[in-house]
Amino acid sequence: METVSENKCFGGKQGVYRHRSAATGCEMTFGLFLPPVSGPVPVLWYLSGLTCTHENAMVKAGAQGFAAEAGVALIFPDTSPRGEGVADDEAFDLGQGAGFYVDATEAPWAPHFRMESYVLGDLSDLVFAAFPLDRDAQAITGHSMGGHGALTLAAKSPGRFRSVSAFSPICNPTESDWGRKQFDAYLGSVDAGRAHDASLLAAAGKLGLPLLTDTGTADQFSDLLRTDTLKAAVAGREDAAVRMQDGYDHSYFFVATFMREHVAFHARHLCP
Amino acid sequence: METVSENKCFGGKQGVYRHRSAATGCEMTFGLFLPPVSGPVPVLWYLSGLTCTHENAMVKAGAQGFAAEAGVALIFPDTSPRGEGVADDEAFDLGQGAGFYVDATEAPWAPHFRMESYVLGDLSDLVFAAFPLDRDAQAITGHSMGGHGALTLAAKSPGRFRSVSAFSPICNPTESDWGRKQFDAYLGSVDAGRAHDASLLAAAGKLGLPLLTDTGTADQFSDLLRTDTLKAAVAGREDAAVRMQDGYDHSYFFVATFMREHVAFHARHLCP
Repeated sequence: METVSENKCFGGKQGVYRHRSAATGCEMTFGLFLPPVSGPVPVLWYLSGLTCTHENAMVKAGAQGFAAEAGVALIFPDTSPRGEGVADDEAFDLGQGAGFYVDATEAPWAPHFRMESYVLGDLSDLVFAAFPLDRDAQAITGHSMGGHGALTLAAKSPGRFRSVSAFSPICNPTESDWGRKQFDAYLGSVDAGRAHDASLLAAAGKLGLPLLTDTGTADQFSDLLRTDTLKAAVAGREDAAVRMQDGYDHSYFFVATFMREHVAFHARHLCP
Repeated sequence: METVSENKCFGGKQGVYRHRSAATGCEMTFGLFLPPVSGPVPVLWYLSGLTCTHENAMVKAGAQGFAAEAGVALIFPDTSPRGEGVADDEAFDLGQGAGFYVDATEAPWAPHFRMESYVLGDLSDLVFAAFPLDRDAQAITGHSMGGHGALTLAAKSPGRFRSVSAFSPICNPTESDWGRKQFDAYLGSVDAGRAHDASLLAAAGKLGLPLLTDTGTADQFSDLLRTDTLKAAVAGREDAAVRMQDGYDHSYFFVATFMREHVAFHARHLCP
């Protein structure tokens, strides 16, 4: 693992690191914020959206201040494999920058596009070995495609995360142009994507952990997010809130606005 | 004035606007955050550093949340004129992105590089006419070159700002490579820059308003900032604090860390 940069931040340390991943078969870069307390500390994963790298949320979401106060670490993975020899597409929503947090089975994506195994496997193994983090106190959040990633990785690894949240998540990708195209490309069919659809997983009772999502009523991509499907799937659950926020759009100005509440939500479960 | 974008943010509105400036003779872009309270509201100007546009602090400094709580508006001007026909230099610290908040008198800079007149004149006239802002309740801050800008514009316009602060400001540009080269180019001599040197102005008793600056002890540009000269110039003043912050560098991770305190400092003077 190579240190790209380290900056003191809210009394803690915001680092950027690069490492070789067996899962993705390429060099991967991630951000990690350590709060100013002695470890092992709880961890909040933040998965980013389409076109993002490890960097966007790290510099724009304003999470470090709240994480420092809560004594929680933050991990910011990249959104896909990258580099020469890694397949790509001209569209912004397929290929590099658009891994969708699944393990591709189809050509040309299968050799590198294995973001589920990367986040839950390689990167986890690395950060828990290299940093003073508490493997038994993990939570996960994300934005847009990363919200889909947070919800589905949490559903697919029961017991691993204590709580899950998301900002403007893609809720029902098998019925959305943000999902159908990608599942078809990466997994060979939209049907194969049903195992990676947050609303379907929730409706099947597989998203049983404490859940909080926020989506703006002015989100320019609301048709693609299909928030109502998730709301219906968790209806009646006291530990699940699918909230609409009046007038907010899909931007990081929205994410930053509600970051304090999301960090506090996770801290209640991570540091009870 | 043209609206480039508007995003709801912390209950208020983060806008980006474009207008034609007579002072700079070109189109200028700026950001403006309005808090979620009825106006006229107090204003905190934020001047950015070398290579920045109106955008950097707007997305990375984390100021909107604190400004929303305090009921203060934020204005993020660009750092120079831009565009075709506007002089530039290959160096990152001269020309576009490096206006140094002075009015150039020398060729080829004089026709457009008039950032002092732009901020205090054109842009002020525009925003106070177009938005519900209180012209009688203004404060100013900035980072690096923008810290120099904040300190010197405050000193040169007595009574205009109620308080001034800065993050990692260039304090003594007439004795720094971040200043000597630019004053020589824009104003014809380093001597002409003495009227735009925060430490010299403070030593002459011309920086009499409440003042707060923070600079990191690990700032990679500390030799260029010459923080000690400002500290000496305001020594003994109870309303002036030139603070060193252990382990912090020059980055926006540092700015974001201390933003809460700077907004609170200004709010005490703007909303007494």
